[in-house]
Amino acid sequence: MMPFRFDIVTLFPDFFTSPLKSGLLGKALSRGIAEVYLTNPRDFTTDKHRKVDDEPYGGGVGMLMKPEPIFAAVESLPILERRIVLLMTPQGEPMNQPLFRELALNYDQAIAICGHYEGVDERVLHLVDREVSLGDFVLTCGEIPALTLINGVTRLLPGTVGKEASLKAESFEAGLLDYPQYTRPAEFRGHKVPDVLLSGHHGEIERWRKSQQVQRTRSRRPDLYLEWLKQQNSSEMNSSDRL
Amino acid sequence: MMPFRFDIVTLFPDFFTSPLKSGLLGKALSRGIAEVYLTNPRDFTTDKHRKVDDEPYGGGVGMLMKPEPIFAAVESLPILERRIVLLMTPQGEPMNQPLFRELALNYDQAIAICGHYEGVDERVLHLVDREVSLGDFVLTCGEIPALTLINGVTRLLPGTVGKEASLKAESFEAGLLDYPQYTRPAEFRGHKVPDVLLSGHHGEIERWRKSQQVQRTRSRRPDLYLEWLKQQNSSEMNSSDRL
Repeated sequence: MMPFRFDIVTLFPDFFTSPLKSGLLGKALSRGIAEVYLTNPRDFTTDKHRKVDDEPYGGGVGMLMKPEPIFAAVESLPILERRIVLLMTPQGEPMNQPLFRELALNYDQAIAICGHYEGVDERVLHLVDREVSLGDFVLTCGEIPALTLINGVTRLLPGTVGKEASLKAESFEAGLLDYPQYTRPAEFRGHKVPDVLLSGHHGEIERWRKSQQVQRTRSRRPDLYLEWLKQQNSSEMNSSDRL
Repeated sequence: MMPFRFDIVTLFPDFFTSPLKSGLLGKALSRGIAEVYLTNPRDFTTDKHRKVDDEPYGGGVGMLMKPEPIFAAVESLPILERRIVLLMTPQGEPMNQPLFRELALNYDQAIAICGHYEGVDERVLHLVDREVSLGDFVLTCGEIPALTLINGVTRLLPGTVGKEASLKAESFEAGLLDYPQYTRPAEFRGHKVPDVLLSGHHGEIERWRKSQQVQRTRSRRPDLYLEWLKQQNSSEMNSSDRL
């Protein structure tokens, strides 16, 4: 199988050196499950100062990334058949598990343009298929969102995580938060593992875990809980239709 | 002013090497605006295999982080007066700009525990003030969420970003997405900068930018738009109360 190709367009390629070597992601990359290429727009400037930013039209503080070096950087990249160009920006759609799954399943190449300074010239959007946001906050750079994308997508590629089951059981795949988990020792500083988990009764363990998931999601994330309830109702209606 | 202290409890301290040297965050750290200390729970194991994980009680795939090494790691850290302990987990409250602002304003020390494998033993919560999630997705590690926190909080500390105004004008501070921005050239590949931005008429530029913010937020993020509308209405009601 061909490795998934990430192309990161970044003014700070050195940012990525250690995170791409670390942990499970580092292992997946060294096994060739995915490849990450770093392209610096500064290498595509044509003036002697290698200028990548300039002042915003209409006034305002801070500097914007100029369009030309970003266009030239993206246009220098090879074009795989199933390719998508993403801009990392707080103005984009929030990153989530369905987006990671869509990229892992439907694409061979993801190009991520990392914003910097106060943002990028709006005309860069002519290059871009989708704008993606890491969350409702502001960072100094788009490198962290790009790294998140690399990690979340690579994790879903075959071979990265040992057992398929380990992917399926997790948070957000079922639309609910995860249940509480415990390991040895059975008692730690007076805090005991819940009896049901030591019971060996698999049916009861399943029920306890499911009820913990529902309770937790309802109290911590009413937004996810409502989504989940809707899905439950619509799948119940579908099964009664079939009767 | 004392630097803000981040303590990152991580099985993969090497992850952080290059990101903490890169860009604006790297500069802020080298200027002593904040300090990042890395503590590895593996250094606090007492068995000869230096075991940090174990199987979950009640069955299930994957390994959990054991409680003892994490407790010992956190308890080895110095205790500053205004200190908060955070667990990085998809089950937590979503990270956002108000959380970053709260940490930057009200604390001197943030301890971030990075989860790994399938999660951490639930009893680790006895150490933790708040559980924090980067978003509704699953990553192979908690190091990326911790790095996001370091970046977003350090960005808000005095001295990191040149002009205070540059912080205030941005996305999420006003509850709206940012307006489109343009820099030179005025025409690029047939795409022109909007006339209003070249007009020099500051009042019109302000109005255009504000209307772009409102339109964009309404179409892309109806959730944020509704929040913003509520705030507008309540501040209008407050000002009419005063009449």
